Amino acid sequence: MTAAPSTTASLLARRARVLGPAYRLFYDDPVHLVRGEGVWLHDADGKRYLDAYNNVACVGHAHPRVVQAIARQAAVLNTHTRYLHEGVVDYAERLLRTAPGMDHAMFTCTGSEANDLALRIARAHTQAQGLIVTDNAYHGVTAAIAEASPSLGRYIKLGPAVRTVAPPDTRHGDAAAVGARFAQSVREAAADLRAHGLAPAALLVDTIFSTDGIHADPAGFLAPAVQAIHEEGGLFIADEVQPGFGRGGDTFWGYQRHGVAPDLVTMGKPMGNGHPVAGLMTRADVLAAFGRECRYFNTFGGNPVSMAAAGAVLDVIEDEGLRENARVVGDYLRARLRELSARHPVVADVRGAGLFVGLELSEERSEGPDRAPATDLAARVVNGLRRQGILLSATGAAGNVLKIRPPLVFQREHADLLADGIGAALAACGA
Amino acid sequence: MTAAPSTTASLLARRARVLGPAYRLFYDDPVHLVRGEGVWLHDADGKRYLDAYNNVACVGHAHPRVVQAIARQAAVLNTHTRYLHEGVVDYAERLLRTAPGMDHAMFTCTGSEANDLALRIARAHTQAQGLIVTDNAYHGVTAAIAEASPSLGRYIKLGPAVRTVAPPDTRHGDAAAVGARFAQSVREAAADLRAHGLAPAALLVDTIFSTDGIHADPAGFLAPAVQAIHEEGGLFIADEVQPGFGRGGDTFWGYQRHGVAPDLVTMGKPMGNGHPVAGLMTRADVLAAFGRECRYFNTFGGNPVSMAAAGAVLDVIEDEGLRENARVVGDYLRARLRELSARHPVVADVRGAGLFVGLELSEERSEGPDRAPATDLAARVVNGLRRQGILLSATGAAGNVLKIRPPLVFQREHADLLADGIGAALAACGA
Repeated sequence: MTAAPSTTASLLARRARVLGPAYRLFYDDPVHLVRGEGVWLHDADGKRYLDAYNNVACVGHAHPRVVQAIARQAAVLNTHTRYLHEGVVDYAERLLRTAPGMDHAMFTCTGSEANDLALRIARAHTQAQGLIVTDNAYHGVTAAIAEASPSLGRYIKLGPAVRTVAPPDTRHGDAAAVGARFAQSVREAAADLRAHGLAPAALLVDTIFSTDGIHADPAGFLAPAVQAIHEEGGLFIADEVQPGFGRGGDTFWGYQRHGVAPDLVTMGKPMGNGHPVAGLMTRADVLAAFGRECRYFNTFGGNPVSMAAAGAVLDVIEDEGLRENARVVGDYLRARLRELSARHPVVADVRGAGLFVGLELSEERSEGPDRAPATDLAARVVNGLRRQGILLSATGAAGNVLKIRPPLVFQREHADLLADGIGAALAACGA
Repeated sequence: MTAAPSTTASLLARRARVLGPAYRLFYDDPVHLVRGEGVWLHDADGKRYLDAYNNVACVGHAHPRVVQAIARQAAVLNTHTRYLHEGVVDYAERLLRTAPGMDHAMFTCTGSEANDLALRIARAHTQAQGLIVTDNAYHGVTAAIAEASPSLGRYIKLGPAVRTVAPPDTRHGDAAAVGARFAQSVREAAADLRAHGLAPAALLVDTIFSTDGIHADPAGFLAPAVQAIHEEGGLFIADEVQPGFGRGGDTFWGYQRHGVAPDLVTMGKPMGNGHPVAGLMTRADVLAAFGRECRYFNTFGGNPVSMAAAGAVLDVIEDEGLRENARVVGDYLRARLRELSARHPVVADVRGAGLFVGLELSEERSEGPDRAPATDLAARVVNGLRRQGILLSATGAAGNVLKIRPPLVFQREHADLLADGIGAALAACGA
């Protein structure tokens, strides 16, 4: 295959020319994909990659039931929610059954739009502007949400009504202790908002803290912060764009792991297995103010084809037992990864829930008990794995946590390949 | 068909329960659609509707080439722009060829996201915040764009850096005179921004002023305003979400009708014939500041399936000669509609370009030369046409302009049905 590399090089040049400077590619040596099925992706040279990263393709790449649902509905009708259609009503009813306590569903096309809409609803309900997020949060790329997504980098200024809090320190203490500290930081942020003449509209968190380094345990640690934001007059928005749809194994939604009752729940990435569909759920009392005086129309949001795709994803999750699979294979994977720490002391922690797993790489510090993030090593391991044919990435404020978030059809054999691969990549880096 | 009405009634109740109060339906008697093909839509009772409204299905409902393109690519691979893929590069190159002067394309999932991103890029480039839009503009539903969309209603407050200007008064004077007045209002808005310590980042207009009542002629009237915003240090953003993709007949993009050179061009609705795909084009110098320090990643934006859908739409527009069809059938339709004014003096104006047509309904005022908008009549005509089996809507600040924006496969026979139908509906209203 000598032609392919030059094809890839030419594609890189063409891409840079037409897409421009704001687009980024993964890896020092970008991957040129042409085909996928299940947990496997294939590049233009015929090389196969184990996908340990893409939660979007949650039921597996190119799942035939999702493809068929899209093709069938697209051939019949694709229109919008200003006409009556069964699809959006059927799906909304089904979605709401996964989330007792939620009354209404609204549909957008992206998780960014879902968080943006949740913020508008929260501000209408509370008549307040303040928004509290974590230090390295990512919630989307609309103007209003980018300014509440510090992980996008310093150039994008935080909004004047945005306050950040340290993510839960899950290394020290039980759920009550972790929760009390996090809740206290939320109270302090609310007080700071008030000191500036503002008030908190909402606490918005990714319920598995994906970009803050992946924090799922101790289960229950979110409860005190939810109580705190409510006492401060704000709402709790559970951002389920990454953790939602059964990935956590134990529960369908990440917030359910913590036994809390959100006011708004946003979702996106895995919802249509790659088809652009997203949305939110909320309670009638929370939506009342927005609904009384604003209409919401999203031309493509909730269209019959998107709803068919989303419905097929729920079918497959149920029929193939993927939440249970996430639980069992996730537990197995974490056990395999923990074995690595014996041979590789740089493996400082393995954590997560179901098939959302973080592997933290940190060096012993000579000067004290804290450990220094092994940021460069993480980047080398990610690129080493790419060369081995395994796709994942790194996350956390220091970029030192391997982010493992495969399609939910990931099996034990894939977990073995992944654990062995990470071990080999660490060894190759001398770690 | 006695069962169907109760099915529809039950669906209405279920819908209100799960979607909540922010969703709206068209028509006093909502339409429950189950199937579409070409310019026809079918309801659950087996009734057929001529679609004179839905520009989203620009190449016709359920066009087999678009359906096939989506189905074929979804079965192979659907992933994102952080991996290399031919699809997004091929489409971007092709799109840019329609717009000489544009260097880069970026992809989102909705027109709202496209306008939101354009605003972020304009603000990064100009280091200014001000945004100038028209009095009844609609540009989308993200928080940042909703606050620049006065047509959403008074509850949604305009942003502190947003200024509105009257839409071009196209009834009086030639392109130079219309343009000079519109440009002067843009200069005054810029001066008002400066008086408040702000500066203009951009003038953002729908290039056919859809929600301001549909204004296409006299061609060229936009040029002085574009010059004015440039002299004020701001950019010109051409919102092509409604007029774009050949609908205007004479040109592929609405701005090209006016011979102007935009700094950013946003697009959406018809781009994927209903598949959620949207985006923008811009120049390298305009994108430089944003691209230097921001990354832009939209999980679903520019994915291989969306690009396949969008590519198939371009194929059909070209292969079926739909821009030319829009020009020819649009001219014919306007001629047929103008004949109505002899019998129905309330038909005050028929205007537009290609298959984007506005029919203004206004009463003679007893007290002077101006005419009073026939708002209630327009609503009755829209609902009367729905009962006749013809779908359209009304637009403009007073809601007195019939908005006619059918799939581009609309033929003369459909134009005849529509013109006859409007005549019958006016007669039935005694107008």
